[in-house]
Amino acid sequence: MSLHVKIKSDIEIAQAAKMKPILEIAKQLELTEDDIELYGKYKAKLSSKTITKLQTKEAGKVILVTAINPTPAGEGKSTVTVGLGDALHRLDKKVMIALREPSLGPTMGIKGGATGGGYAQVLPMEDINLHFTGDFHAITSANNALAALIDNHLQQGNELRIDQRRIVWKRALDLNDRALRKVVVGLGGPMQGVPREDGFDITVASEIMAVLCLATDLHNLRERLSKMVVAYNMEKEPVTVGDLGVEGALTLLLKDAVKPNLVQTIEHTPALVHGGPFANIAHGCNSVIATVAASKLADYVVTEAGFGADLGAEKFLNIKTRAAGFEPSAVVIVATIRALKMHGGVPKQELGNENIESLKAGFENLRKHAETIASFGLPFVVAINKFITDTDLEVNTLLELCKQYHLPVELTEVWEKGGEGGIALAQRLLEVIEKEERDFAPIYDLSDSIEEKITAIVQKVYGGSGVEFSTKAKKQIAEFERFGWGNLPVCMAKTQYSLSDDPTKLGRPTDFTVTVRELKASVGAGFIVALTGDVMTMPGLPKVPAALKMDVDDQGNAIGLF
Amino acid sequence: MSLHVKIKSDIEIAQAAKMKPILEIAKQLELTEDDIELYGKYKAKLSSKTITKLQTKEAGKVILVTAINPTPAGEGKSTVTVGLGDALHRLDKKVMIALREPSLGPTMGIKGGATGGGYAQVLPMEDINLHFTGDFHAITSANNALAALIDNHLQQGNELRIDQRRIVWKRALDLNDRALRKVVVGLGGPMQGVPREDGFDITVASEIMAVLCLATDLHNLRERLSKMVVAYNMEKEPVTVGDLGVEGALTLLLKDAVKPNLVQTIEHTPALVHGGPFANIAHGCNSVIATVAASKLADYVVTEAGFGADLGAEKFLNIKTRAAGFEPSAVVIVATIRALKMHGGVPKQELGNENIESLKAGFENLRKHAETIASFGLPFVVAINKFITDTDLEVNTLLELCKQYHLPVELTEVWEKGGEGGIALAQRLLEVIEKEERDFAPIYDLSDSIEEKITAIVQKVYGGSGVEFSTKAKKQIAEFERFGWGNLPVCMAKTQYSLSDDPTKLGRPTDFTVTVRELKASVGAGFIVALTGDVMTMPGLPKVPAALKMDVDDQGNAIGLF
Repeated sequence: MSLHVKIKSDIEIAQAAKMKPILEIAKQLELTEDDIELYGKYKAKLSSKTITKLQTKEAGKVILVTAINPTPAGEGKSTVTVGLGDALHRLDKKVMIALREPSLGPTMGIKGGATGGGYAQVLPMEDINLHFTGDFHAITSANNALAALIDNHLQQGNELRIDQRRIVWKRALDLNDRALRKVVVGLGGPMQGVPREDGFDITVASEIMAVLCLATDLHNLRERLSKMVVAYNMEKEPVTVGDLGVEGALTLLLKDAVKPNLVQTIEHTPALVHGGPFANIAHGCNSVIATVAASKLADYVVTEAGFGADLGAEKFLNIKTRAAGFEPSAVVIVATIRALKMHGGVPKQELGNENIESLKAGFENLRKHAETIASFGLPFVVAINKFITDTDLEVNTLLELCKQYHLPVELTEVWEKGGEGGIALAQRLLEVIEKEERDFAPIYDLSDSIEEKITAIVQKVYGGSGVEFSTKAKKQIAEFERFGWGNLPVCMAKTQYSLSDDPTKLGRPTDFTVTVRELKASVGAGFIVALTGDVMTMPGLPKVPAALKMDVDDQGNAIGLF
Repeated sequence: MSLHVKIKSDIEIAQAAKMKPILEIAKQLELTEDDIELYGKYKAKLSSKTITKLQTKEAGKVILVTAINPTPAGEGKSTVTVGLGDALHRLDKKVMIALREPSLGPTMGIKGGATGGGYAQVLPMEDINLHFTGDFHAITSANNALAALIDNHLQQGNELRIDQRRIVWKRALDLNDRALRKVVVGLGGPMQGVPREDGFDITVASEIMAVLCLATDLHNLRERLSKMVVAYNMEKEPVTVGDLGVEGALTLLLKDAVKPNLVQTIEHTPALVHGGPFANIAHGCNSVIATVAASKLADYVVTEAGFGADLGAEKFLNIKTRAAGFEPSAVVIVATIRALKMHGGVPKQELGNENIESLKAGFENLRKHAETIASFGLPFVVAINKFITDTDLEVNTLLELCKQYHLPVELTEVWEKGGEGGIALAQRLLEVIEKEERDFAPIYDLSDSIEEKITAIVQKVYGGSGVEFSTKAKKQIAEFERFGWGNLPVCMAKTQYSLSDDPTKLGRPTDFTVTVRELKASVGAGFIVALTGDVMTMPGLPKVPAALKMDVDDQGNAIGLF
């Protein structure tokens, strides 16, 4: 890593990169001017007609990038996803990347962008990290239009006999705003609505985000929207969007948001960046429409799922593949030596010191995720995202451990070197796809009971001994089965930091049970959310929000975005 | 009017129209591909560089379209604005139209679009009436990011000693949602923020909307945002966005929203559609940047202001011209015989019957507005937007009345005939611009006291006898002058239905006083809002919202938008 590289920030690298007109990128994919809708020179949406046209084409191979449980040390999963795509591009493969869109809330708060990093980024990063093509704003509008229509229904006579204490549809904003977590609306007298408790989620936690990301086309989107449960009536029966008769209006508000966004990496590899549901309350993957379209446009699609393999990958493999009707060809599991040392007990401020024992202890986290992927019948490669502070002994120890447990592994340096730093990984991956056996199957059947599905995930994916269901959860399961929702897959809402439901248990905890506190039916998205512990669906801002450093320069370019 | 025309809805006419690629429209204006940023084939933003480049060019003539006080009968001001532009275009004039962007709230509620009507529409009407290029969403984001940053400031120690009872910055959504008018936020315990009373305005009532529409460039936008007062501290001194240090972040969120949107009419006349502040709580005109850019690109700009001449035109002439530094060349005052009859006392259900006496009585409303425009030193033409139900006697009576009081007048039929139906109006207007004297001046000086400014508006524009100030208003005026805001222009928040502050007083009321209940300092926008009566800043939905009829067809086109 040269001094020059070290002092450049992601935004500086991104702004210095020379993009090609997106029309040229489209042409690489054999798309014409009429196949795309331009949003400026460097962003475009695939048109509805193009998406329909692609449906009959043969699909390429889907490669899922996942990771160990995240730590404050950072793993660089998006960066590896982009770098791996660039590496395959350098190897002259016809490749596309499929990524989630970032949420504005964390960007203004603390997190930074979600467009990769260093020389492995998708561009234009400023736009993608701000309003992009307006997809999230459309979802926010649809979410809140629905909320307004529900409150208006109460105000105008409540024909559907909605129990105002049992409205489960919350409002949403794409911001970090803790003061909106719990609110009372409808105050001020009879002309100002019916007073009731309410709350706001961040837009990425809205069921509409999950619906948009699991829909297979506009028609299917409308059908899913129609099924969304917004409240329960006085008889405790579910009230849906269809009952309110507003699925058409919501679909209309989302008719452009449902089209995937075409952009490029620094190395001009085409990427679809589309949708971005939370990986806890929802399934944490970019849209089905984008992944499927990418697989029709390219021979290889590199895509990622949120958080560690226990959350994002589990949901990708149990939920998204069923909705989309495809099977992934291989998985990449990203880890860093720093993060593994944290899993082995090293505090963040001591990560600069060599620590072989902690690395060995932390390796168990990686090993568990590799076992999980294998249990889905999928081949994989471990990608070690190398840092300049990693010592030779640490690197060799980790490679030796992988060898000992038969985990295929490669080092990557995509942050500093872009695609060049991912060539070894790409080659190994191609080899694995060609040679290794693949016998993919989700780890539970849809016909299993809700308890059985949750237990399967806890035992097979988390390595826990069993599940405790609260009294409330048991009652809800019985109700949900009575409503005919028993055949839906389960979406676990669990801390991302641990394989267990206790964020302090790093590494590979054993002999733990997971407590399911409560369930939530996302019938439109098509899954039952099982909530373990406290799940934050509206983040807060830190003491010094990132917003304080943001500005524009004289030419109107972003400053301090990262 | 043919039967064929009568049965077509606005959206059917719009969808049947054949648009030119917006790049072709840009070329008509001598703009190149590099001067615009495409949003699909038929929408574009002018780039920052282009806006800067235009500043040195000579300006064309600005024509303001205003109206009598609105009635439920409808006046068709936007339709006349578009039709007049098309007519000038047919007369081979180099012309542009400048309009406000519609708000999604009323579209989902009851109002219908704001893109003209019949054969005098701007296109693509579906897009313009839905998310368009995302400007309003960017404003909503900036508005609510600011709110979140204020609440976070309270939560993180409240260094600025903000009095949580005196936070004047409200949250906003671009929806009609009465349940959000009065809310309590920050409930749920110490980790969920500081509990306090709050409320949501519709986005078009956000001060950021007014700021964006009065800013002359990005730098000026940042300066205005910085000055916005968000709260008062424990010493009752104002706390601004600049004190919070987040004007840079807000500017960043608005960096694209500040660029005007180029579209076209059904007849391919170029139009800039940009910004849309309320005409009561704010000044009700499209952006200064759009009007100025249009005046540099064309010899004639036809633009409109919200509601009747007592609100929109008064603010255009007293507020917008000062911020923008231009003078209008002439004014068009739109009226319909139906609306004048309502001003003369005819109820809506009887408008189909000939009623000469009521027409004569209602004419007084039109006459007053004509006097007002004359008092600003501007020439004008009255445009009678003709309906098939108007009788010959009614038409002749009205023309005779106009003649009697020396009001230049023309009939228009732009709804049915597009530009062809506005040729007579366009020719008369050109004549008036050439021949009539013009000696424009705002009707008060900025150095007048706040009371003097309000009194001038009430007496000269409304025709009232005087103003009563509540005790609260008097106290606020003293405070505002102490804070150094005494030199700002005044923005009246008054009912649009009457020249007085009583919505039931139609026609031309006399001998009335206006009560100023309260004031609000929009220091960033650069005006003091004087509130008379109850001003609704967050509309509600009706019993049967328009949303119930909205949908998409199999090709993804809008259904039931109008």
